[in-house]
Amino acid sequence: MAKMMGKEAALFVPSGTMGNLICVMVHCDVRGSEVILGDTCHIHVYENGGISTIGGVHPKTIRNEEDGTMDLVAIEAAIRDPKGSTFYPSTRLICLENTHANSGGRCLSAEYTDRVGEIAKRHGLKLHVDGARIFNASIALDVPVHRLVKAADSVSVCLSKGLGAPIGSVIVGSQSFIEKAKTLRKTLGGGMRQIGVLCAAALVALQENLPKLQSDHKKTKLLAEGLNKMKGIRVNVAAMETNMIFMDMEDGSRLTAEKLRKSLTEHGILVIPENSSRIRMVIHHQITTSDVHYTLSCLQQAVQTIQEPCQT
Amino acid sequence: MAKMMGKEAALFVPSGTMGNLICVMVHCDVRGSEVILGDTCHIHVYENGGISTIGGVHPKTIRNEEDGTMDLVAIEAAIRDPKGSTFYPSTRLICLENTHANSGGRCLSAEYTDRVGEIAKRHGLKLHVDGARIFNASIALDVPVHRLVKAADSVSVCLSKGLGAPIGSVIVGSQSFIEKAKTLRKTLGGGMRQIGVLCAAALVALQENLPKLQSDHKKTKLLAEGLNKMKGIRVNVAAMETNMIFMDMEDGSRLTAEKLRKSLTEHGILVIPENSSRIRMVIHHQITTSDVHYTLSCLQQAVQTIQEPCQT
Amino acid sequence: MAKMMGKEAALFVPSGTMGNLICVMVHCDVRGSEVILGDTCHIHVYENGGISTIGGVHPKTIRNEEDGTMDLVAIEAAIRDPKGSTFYPSTRLICLENTHANSGGRCLSAEYTDRVGEIAKRHGLKLHVDGARIFNASIALDVPVHRLVKAADSVSVCLSKGLGAPIGSVIVGSQSFIEKAKTLRKTLGGGMRQIGVLCAAALVALQENLPKLQSDHKKTKLLAEGLNKMKGIRVNVAAMETNMIFMDMEDGSRLTAEKLRKSLTEHGILVIPENSSRIRMVIHHQITTSDVHYTLSCLQQAVQTIQEPCQT
Amino acid sequence: MAKMMGKEAALFVPSGTMGNLICVMVHCDVRGSEVILGDTCHIHVYENGGISTIGGVHPKTIRNEEDGTMDLVAIEAAIRDPKGSTFYPSTRLICLENTHANSGGRCLSAEYTDRVGEIAKRHGLKLHVDGARIFNASIALDVPVHRLVKAADSVSVCLSKGLGAPIGSVIVGSQSFIEKAKTLRKTLGGGMRQIGVLCAAALVALQENLPKLQSDHKKTKLLAEGLNKMKGIRVNVAAMETNMIFMDMEDGSRLTAEKLRKSLTEHGILVIPENSSRIRMVIHHQITTSDVHYTLSCLQQAVQTIQEPCQT
Repeated sequence: MAKMMGKEAALFVPSGTMGNLICVMVHCDVRGSEVILGDTCHIHVYENGGISTIGGVHPKTIRNEEDGTMDLVAIEAAIRDPKGSTFYPSTRLICLENTHANSGGRCLSAEYTDRVGEIAKRHGLKLHVDGARIFNASIALDVPVHRLVKAADSVSVCLSKGLGAPIGSVIVGSQSFIEKAKTLRKTLGGGMRQIGVLCAAALVALQENLPKLQSDHKKTKLLAEGLNKMKGIRVNVAAMETNMIFMDMEDGSRLTAEKLRKSLTEHGILVIPENSSRIRMVIHHQITTSDVHYTLSCLQQAVQTIQEPCQT
Repeated sequence: MAKMMGKEAALFVPSGTMGNLICVMVHCDVRGSEVILGDTCHIHVYENGGISTIGGVHPKTIRNEEDGTMDLVAIEAAIRDPKGSTFYPSTRLICLENTHANSGGRCLSAEYTDRVGEIAKRHGLKLHVDGARIFNASIALDVPVHRLVKAADSVSVCLSKGLGAPIGSVIVGSQSFIEKAKTLRKTLGGGMRQIGVLCAAALVALQENLPKLQSDHKKTKLLAEGLNKMKGIRVNVAAMETNMIFMDMEDGSRLTAEKLRKSLTEHGILVIPENSSRIRMVIHHQITTSDVHYTLSCLQQAVQTIQEPCQT
Repeated sequence: MAKMMGKEAALFVPSGTMGNLICVMVHCDVRGSEVILGDTCHIHVYENGGISTIGGVHPKTIRNEEDGTMDLVAIEAAIRDPKGSTFYPSTRLICLENTHANSGGRCLSAEYTDRVGEIAKRHGLKLHVDGARIFNASIALDVPVHRLVKAADSVSVCLSKGLGAPIGSVIVGSQSFIEKAKTLRKTLGGGMRQIGVLCAAALVALQENLPKLQSDHKKTKLLAEGLNKMKGIRVNVAAMETNMIFMDMEDGSRLTAEKLRKSLTEHGILVIPENSSRIRMVIHHQITTSDVHYTLSCLQQAVQTIQEPCQT
Repeated sequence: MAKMMGKEAALFVPSGTMGNLICVMVHCDVRGSEVILGDTCHIHVYENGGISTIGGVHPKTIRNEEDGTMDLVAIEAAIRDPKGSTFYPSTRLICLENTHANSGGRCLSAEYTDRVGEIAKRHGLKLHVDGARIFNASIALDVPVHRLVKAADSVSVCLSKGLGAPIGSVIVGSQSFIEKAKTLRKTLGGGMRQIGVLCAAALVALQENLPKLQSDHKKTKLLAEGLNKMKGIRVNVAAMETNMIFMDMEDGSRLTAEKLRKSLTEHGILVIPENSSRIRMVIHHQITTSDVHYTLSCLQQAVQTIQEPCQT
């Protein structure tokens, strides 16, 4: 994994949450550190606030744009150097997420990441990439994964989402970074004994499932285009770059996320309502093209039934 | 102080920073807590990130509007209840700042604070008011201070800003809250021995300087109006509600905050550049009306000299 | 596992270190907590100080006696109630370790644990048992495991030591305790996705390997008695209650832990020097009686060679 | 103060507790640190466990001998270097307390401190001296205070105990250490505005009260010798080196700490019972020789009354 990412060393961790937590805590191992990160990123929203409640790191959030990026000027303006002041924590880290899940799996380009890396370097900061779905970005952008994270000091990669390994994430970085990470993994309780059985499964995931990601993206496109044709449903097809779909219900359409979810569940199709009028769908390698057609057909029927109840 | 604020008990602390830190930590004394607060508020911006780096509390920031408020809908939407989920920290506290310094000393109304208090109550949260300058708000709004903080579970009040005591802040709240606060004050190292000498000075501040705050506001208005007449200078006079002025330099005016600061310093007038084209000025009871006129005169001269260098 | 331990609920965690960390942090979830624990116990000595460095819990150590217990009077004297004082943290938890590894795998009796539990109850504290090897204690004492931990509010049990599962520990406690533990497991990064593959292995361990522990103890006794007969070697056979042996080299015997370790390694036998004159050996179910005889034979030869170098 | 202590820089802090907390946290500013300190020292016993609960530093306690020292061999054996292991926190600091209050104000010699300093240096650790009463040690030992703390990287000194200033402690260390301490002081809320009024009082304490400490010690000796002559009372006069007395009640004497405290309080003499048969007394510069005689006289009467109740 280190080789794939173009870094010196790698470490297996039980979860992406621990991977991100370790990376933030190692980069910010001196008390009084601040991290700059997106206001809708996974670390800030879905990881229990662990970087603060466990790590004691102060987060400074920047608005995530629709494409998952943060404004470069805003990033640089947020950096705080406590030299000459006793009022400010020390900014020590910037975090990106690629693909950015809360934007619907949008990809950050190598150029964008480079530019954030330049800002980090200019100010003596580190750059961490939460690359839970970095392979999806690599495939969608047709850019080698090591190129995407070239500017990063650390990356966390998930083995158990699209890749389909049962358990685990991997973090990569410099040799000295990974040494510190190893100690912290032990402290947090992520040091496990016979890790080989999990790594064996992870190797299968990398060898057999990684090549299938491209096909996941194609099926996602197919699904997105089908959904977009339905009355009262709107999908920003161009923005569905990887294996994730945000499906919005138009105002006044009688459709709600909950009604659709319920109907789909009855047909064995599991989706997540993001809010009352948005549903998230994710494609993985075990979902076939015919599953996509089946989903479209079930959904078409549900949409009609909800919108024209008298006809049923 | 407890009586003035309409709360059960009060505690002397060495600084407003400790007052706020103690209040946040006592309300969030269970690990895994999140606090909702404004993105430009003093606690988030100027207190070293202590609530995270010392207190382990995760901050969720909401945008502070120009008048120092946060949108009520945004506040409520940000509340997270981890019941039924293991992904979210528990929101336990909302913080307001009255007056809101980074908005130029704007006052939050009793009604606004009440509405935030209702949101807090509805969700089982606490409300803390950073009332470093709450007396300024009380006077500017002509509302008793206890009415302004009626909905608050705790308030921190500074004795050493406009009030002019040498040292100290006071926090107020329920009896049981203050008991916990007292222990935490000791832990943080704010337990001091013969506090009477500082409290004596604080009593003088409350008795002799508090009545002078209204006059500070008048002098601030006088200064703001004078500044606003100068060429290339812009002050939102209506927004200067208390004893603080933000003076902006117009684009293309040749004026910069640094040039003006330097010139004023030569005349014994101390101001703080907020950025390259904004200066902050604060009036306190030892600045007389004639000091204001002197300042206006010095500044008028500086502005002319900078804008018309050939004439000098 | 909950049923075996006589508790309401159980939770799978990636390691015993995380299990202990979660239990201490959940019992001490209010800031300012103190835990009483043995000065040679695993939590204090081998877990990176995580209860303080991650959990912010203050440890108060009591001397572990040779049999792994702590003096009951010393425990009770160490309890601190900060009511009426602002100088003391609040004692909230007592931790025991059964079997106690650093005492050579000594068993704590049900009666001893009960008495510690009574002290805890009398003072409103919780009792946690680090039961990494609690099944060994159960077998050695011939007391059901639920009886041994009857007084405990939480227990952590290791699946991957003597039991031989590849990965994992389980913590047990009340329903509400385990709910909090689940959230904290997520925060620390111990929430894993398809945990079933690990639980399947753990079930095999419980069904197939648990019954073999008694045999481990017999082989340990056999080994201990054999070692004790060697010139210059001393083993307190009576104290070797479970599957662990401390082998001491007598003063003036020319033997050192390092010399013996090196010699044994050459014969494929792995042991751990505890210090310059003590070696720790552990028996597990894959070590046969003939392996024990082989070990004794190799060691006998090594001891002779070291003590009578001219003869070789 | 820096000059008196022979260090580069000094910082005023609101309390000795904050002074010690800052020093420990600055020396241990990297997460995962361990500190070695005495099991009866002030930092461990009376400061709310702040180094762990606020600072996240793991304490490793060594037994304090009767004279306040810790065994040098035990100190060195406790040092843990996590290199090559992921099980151990990193020892980064050793703390001494001079005089050692819980031993009755015993003085640590310059030589002892030097030897601890050598151990620290040999292992790359820092040495902090809690010198709340370091001036008492200096006078009792007749050694300049800078000599006593020569080996220390930081010292905290209390201004408001024997020295009699109303408020404050000072910490000293290298320039870079004090810079970090200043930021942390702000974070903890110890940054105060017009500190001059407190420093002025502190200067009086240093100039006028410091020379009186020797006299305090003489009066302490006088009191100790007088107490020791009383029936049923035992004072280790030789061990009362500074301004503190531990007065023990002999077994079977009918005397208890509480009975004596109550009787003395009626005569306006305040003492602290340490336990049921030990009372602590402290002499300061406002207690005169005639106060000592008055105390002895009151106590003599109380002792007689309690021991021979029928005679009264």
